[in-house]
Amino acid sequence: MNVAQAGEFGLISRVTARLHPGAATLLGPGDDAAVVAASDGRVVASTDVLVEGRHFRRDWSSAVDVGHRAAAANLADIVAMGAVPTSLLVALCAPPETDAGWAEDLAVGLSDEAAKVGASVVGGDMSASPTLTIAVTALGDLHGATPVLRSGAHAGDVLAIAGRLGYAAAGYTVLSRGFRSPKLLVEAYRRPEVPYAAGPAAANVGASAMIDISDGLIADLGHVATASRVGIDLRRAAFEVPPQMRDTANALGVDPYQWIFGGGDDHALAATFPEDLPLPKGWRRVGHVVKGAGVTVDGQPYQGVAGWEHFQ
Amino acid sequence: MNVAQAGEFGLISRVTARLHPGAATLLGPGDDAAVVAASDGRVVASTDVLVEGRHFRRDWSSAVDVGHRAAAANLADIVAMGAVPTSLLVALCAPPETDAGWAEDLAVGLSDEAAKVGASVVGGDMSASPTLTIAVTALGDLHGATPVLRSGAHAGDVLAIAGRLGYAAAGYTVLSRGFRSPKLLVEAYRRPEVPYAAGPAAANVGASAMIDISDGLIADLGHVATASRVGIDLRRAAFEVPPQMRDTANALGVDPYQWIFGGGDDHALAATFPEDLPLPKGWRRVGHVVKGAGVTVDGQPYQGVAGWEHFQ
Repeated sequence: MNVAQAGEFGLISRVTARLHPGAATLLGPGDDAAVVAASDGRVVASTDVLVEGRHFRRDWSSAVDVGHRAAAANLADIVAMGAVPTSLLVALCAPPETDAGWAEDLAVGLSDEAAKVGASVVGGDMSASPTLTIAVTALGDLHGATPVLRSGAHAGDVLAIAGRLGYAAAGYTVLSRGFRSPKLLVEAYRRPEVPYAAGPAAANVGASAMIDISDGLIADLGHVATASRVGIDLRRAAFEVPPQMRDTANALGVDPYQWIFGGGDDHALAATFPEDLPLPKGWRRVGHVVKGAGVTVDGQPYQGVAGWEHFQ
Repeated sequence: MNVAQAGEFGLISRVTARLHPGAATLLGPGDDAAVVAASDGRVVASTDVLVEGRHFRRDWSSAVDVGHRAAAANLADIVAMGAVPTSLLVALCAPPETDAGWAEDLAVGLSDEAAKVGASVVGGDMSASPTLTIAVTALGDLHGATPVLRSGAHAGDVLAIAGRLGYAAAGYTVLSRGFRSPKLLVEAYRRPEVPYAAGPAAANVGASAMIDISDGLIADLGHVATASRVGIDLRRAAFEVPPQMRDTANALGVDPYQWIFGGGDDHALAATFPEDLPLPKGWRRVGHVVKGAGVTVDGQPYQGVAGWEHFQ
């Protein structure tokens, strides 16, 4: 059965049957709008859109994979503010001939990824479209914490990273060269492992700035440097190239630091901390904040690709 | 300049320059996520997506018009719960050759429509796509009110309507026949006049059920009837056909009740009220809730088109 045969309302009921309400869900799918707890009187909200052929390919990723990645990209933005995600809203645009099972599997991936942080899919919309498109909005709860912005870094702060870097970009390169292994890298591209707990943990100890690495480490740290009016210097030796990534880079003739410094799809977190703070669990020191502007590596300008823009 | 030349970050800064923060905006665009007030510890959230060629046509509506309508469709869902809208998040997918000014004008329309209820655009995302697509999420604040669901109607309740019915559908028919007038109807299609204040007003006096009319009056009342396990009977004489609509219907050989009972793009509100309640401002009585199931007109099954599904 395709989505046109299932019909909008039929498809919605098939999809919502796959969802599990989270603790913050006061009213889930089925009415004009959902109602979600926002315990401290504020809600954190972010939107990300995934377009087929640009952000995912159906021959590279299953529908469940795409659901995991669409959820992860949005949930990462919420934890990067220091908040705990509560819910997702999902708009799905699909060609009429799309298999209804694809939409159901997408819901499973979205729901399962959200469940990792206790969140759930609370609402959405569906439409026919020539282009398969998934727009996700994530909501979160700061639980009294001060949101950690991009603009709070100070010269002298420590720069730290939580999560993996370069794995998803390496997986993307592997897939784009027509390979399906190593599985570690390909799976990292299909389903990023976001260090969700590290975001609220950083906020709780007093991180001065934080960002989700979605465009590429150098590019995203550039946003922090600009917003905070500081420079950021990375220590190259702090970025270890894992063995499978090194082997793959050698086999494909690629500099692995291009993946580590320029790839964004792992949704790692970067944060700055006042020098005297012990780093919370999951964070590792990789550089420091300096007076000046821009991002450098061992004090030198970075020469590789910093990240990528859309509309190119 | 087209959106590819402006680049994602250039376009975002051009667009955000057109936005005005609302009273509930604690942190607006520019970070990983926005922070919005949710004063009573709950947030109401809804998502609607508009796809070019399906929900709008660039030769029928300006970018400002499309912005107004995209915002209105979402804001209507929030007020239909009895909540006051606080903010919008917008994901825009556009072909690279789209004029950057079109995206800026879209932002103006979204922002101006949101400002009617004191809300604002607090965040978003942009991507290249072959299909021009706008996914909007609206957030709202119940200010302590109990959300008004579709499922609360009881036999004996009064059915009332706020806002216009059939105007936008008539405008759509006019445009689809190649005409550009009467202006009243065409403008109603381009920029719906949503009775925003009527939603929270209905919640405050104790409406038992409420819904935004987005698919068509009969179809949407059918959702209320199903969710509430009741029947709903409309009094046809309560629906006046305005003179310009009647003239247009005659000229085009259309039954105007097809627009009034089957058209949804005006985003009127329908609500049920306990019999003894005086209706708040903006509401007019058009029928009542009965034991049974389904929607009838003067006690008879409705024979026309009830509304429309997507994926057809």
